[in-house]
Amino acid sequence: MPAISHTDEKFTLIFQSALRKLRLLFRSTDPQSQPFILPGSGSMGFDIVATNLIKSGENALCLSNGFFSDKFIDCLQIYGVNTDVLESELGDVVHLDEIEKQLKVKKYKIITITHVDTSSAVVNNLQQIAATVKAVSPETLVVVDGVCSVAVENIEFDNWDIDFVLTASQKAIGVPPGLCICYASARALQAALGRETDTTCFLSLKRWFPVQQSFEHGKSAYFATPPVQLINALDVSLDEILSGPLDLRFDKHVKTSDWFKSEIQSLGLKLVNKPGVGTHALTSPYFPDGIDGAQFLRKVKEKGVVFAFGMHPQIAKKHFRVGHMGVSVMNRNDSEIALKVIKQVLFEMGYRW
Amino acid sequence: MPAISHTDEKFTLIFQSALRKLRLLFRSTDPQSQPFILPGSGSMGFDIVATNLIKSGENALCLSNGFFSDKFIDCLQIYGVNTDVLESELGDVVHLDEIEKQLKVKKYKIITITHVDTSSAVVNNLQQIAATVKAVSPETLVVVDGVCSVAVENIEFDNWDIDFVLTASQKAIGVPPGLCICYASARALQAALGRETDTTCFLSLKRWFPVQQSFEHGKSAYFATPPVQLINALDVSLDEILSGPLDLRFDKHVKTSDWFKSEIQSLGLKLVNKPGVGTHALTSPYFPDGIDGAQFLRKVKEKGVVFAFGMHPQIAKKHFRVGHMGVSVMNRNDSEIALKVIKQVLFEMGYRW
Repeated sequence: MPAISHTDEKFTLIFQSALRKLRLLFRSTDPQSQPFILPGSGSMGFDIVATNLIKSGENALCLSNGFFSDKFIDCLQIYGVNTDVLESELGDVVHLDEIEKQLKVKKYKIITITHVDTSSAVVNNLQQIAATVKAVSPETLVVVDGVCSVAVENIEFDNWDIDFVLTASQKAIGVPPGLCICYASARALQAALGRETDTTCFLSLKRWFPVQQSFEHGKSAYFATPPVQLINALDVSLDEILSGPLDLRFDKHVKTSDWFKSEIQSLGLKLVNKPGVGTHALTSPYFPDGIDGAQFLRKVKEKGVVFAFGMHPQIAKKHFRVGHMGVSVMNRNDSEIALKVIKQVLFEMGYRW
Repeated sequence: MPAISHTDEKFTLIFQSALRKLRLLFRSTDPQSQPFILPGSGSMGFDIVATNLIKSGENALCLSNGFFSDKFIDCLQIYGVNTDVLESELGDVVHLDEIEKQLKVKKYKIITITHVDTSSAVVNNLQQIAATVKAVSPETLVVVDGVCSVAVENIEFDNWDIDFVLTASQKAIGVPPGLCICYASARALQAALGRETDTTCFLSLKRWFPVQQSFEHGKSAYFATPPVQLINALDVSLDEILSGPLDLRFDKHVKTSDWFKSEIQSLGLKLVNKPGVGTHALTSPYFPDGIDGAQFLRKVKEKGVVFAFGMHPQIAKKHFRVGHMGVSVMNRNDSEIALKVIKQVLFEMGYRW
């Protein structure tokens, strides 16, 4: 788009439209909830949680499934939050009974859940976890890192009693990186707006809230210059995402993922995630015995396909990650191409199945 | 540009190139200094100063020339910084002898200067202020808000003994909004990297420093996903900015600004800034008596030119702001068009000169 001013009425309408569409993406109709579109990145959302939803000295129960869960926990600890960590086995999720047990031990201001931890390729069952929290400790805020899950995995923000989701623009939402997108319930807003002492300026939801509200009501407002072009891209991308029923979108991700994982396993490759808890956003296979990972990824790239090494500290160089989300699932046949290239390169490297 | 991964070697070279060019823009050759390119906005830089260069309970001497100076001060106060404010008269700068006097009264960890405060259209003489600080209180860090000045007004980072400049992408640098760009001296880095207790995660220069260093040395690194497309745009824009001698660029801004201000005054319009301290980035005239500001701006916009109302709390609706920076000065004749439209609209509204 040509550059327009952030004070231009055209941009006000774009910002308004993007905020309204986020409500649809999160399947939320509660007028007391609020979407936030901020300049930044997904990780900035961790600091937003630490400075708006919980205070130094308060307790957080943190579910960990790998690298990104630990990044969230690290951030909370910097701000003096007391973190109790329930760590899953590699490739698994923390079981509900463990969560229930721990919630009975202590009062927690928030529980943090990495919906999809890219490093272990698992997806948490948000609905069940939130229901458990609701049953055992209804005052605990359910806080979700949705960077790798929003627009891939179903999230019913209101129905499931979620309180806060943070995410980024560049994954399944399909917009260039540079936005931190958050979605807050009335209860989360109460915690954020009711704080007596601020510990941040730029990350303060109290300061951003009137700006988001103003734009959503069709009136420009200023706190910091919004990333005009990225918000326009977000509006366009949300149009595409919402052009069909969301259920069909999530189904298509499930089907693509199930098919891809089954094909990969039929080649004799093992998956990092345990059965039943694999995310539909990516597939993470171990390199087979005798195959050099770096050489494999290089050869794949020569054929025009890019996979990433793992990033789970225990096994980073032993596996690779194949994303299947957003346009690559909905508008293209990238997963078929990826599978074909995997087979070609494994064959060239002497692997047989 | 087509989307590329932030881990792609092509992007590493782009990031590296943009960082190296920032050194040239800041006229800095000290290998111990460090440019930072971060997702965010200019205002985020205030929080970066508050969480990296000074601590709660320490003293800051803050020069105020209007809205943006006060925004910086507000941010520092949130973090518990003791701020002593020297406020200029409207349209003027704080005089050197006042600064010198105050620096002798108390020890200050930092002095904050809004190089150009858009709200009052004045430019501070950074070189003289920094020299005064150096002479009277050499341990005080010289911290500059350069949002509206970088790439318009000359900044000789090393020669003038500046310690920290924060700026944004969308003003004279000519890139879409969404980046917070900082430049730190060895002394500023020492303050940031030597902190024993962190009070931020996402805004921590300690965490970003190795990432910026790694990219500058041609190796990808990860802390949070960088805004790939914006950094590419920055690299392209810095190419344009550095395609000729910087002195010529700054001269052209001076000449355009001097010419425009003199033409405006010859119409009988008064300027917000006092003589000798006007910035070359914009001109801020009062509406003449009998001219309705809102109507004037609407009529101007109908002719395809956009001016903004003022934003200085005392006089916001009494004046307007005409930017002349970056491409509008270097590559186009926007100021001539702006002047022509001002004359047309004033004439249509019955004003004579």
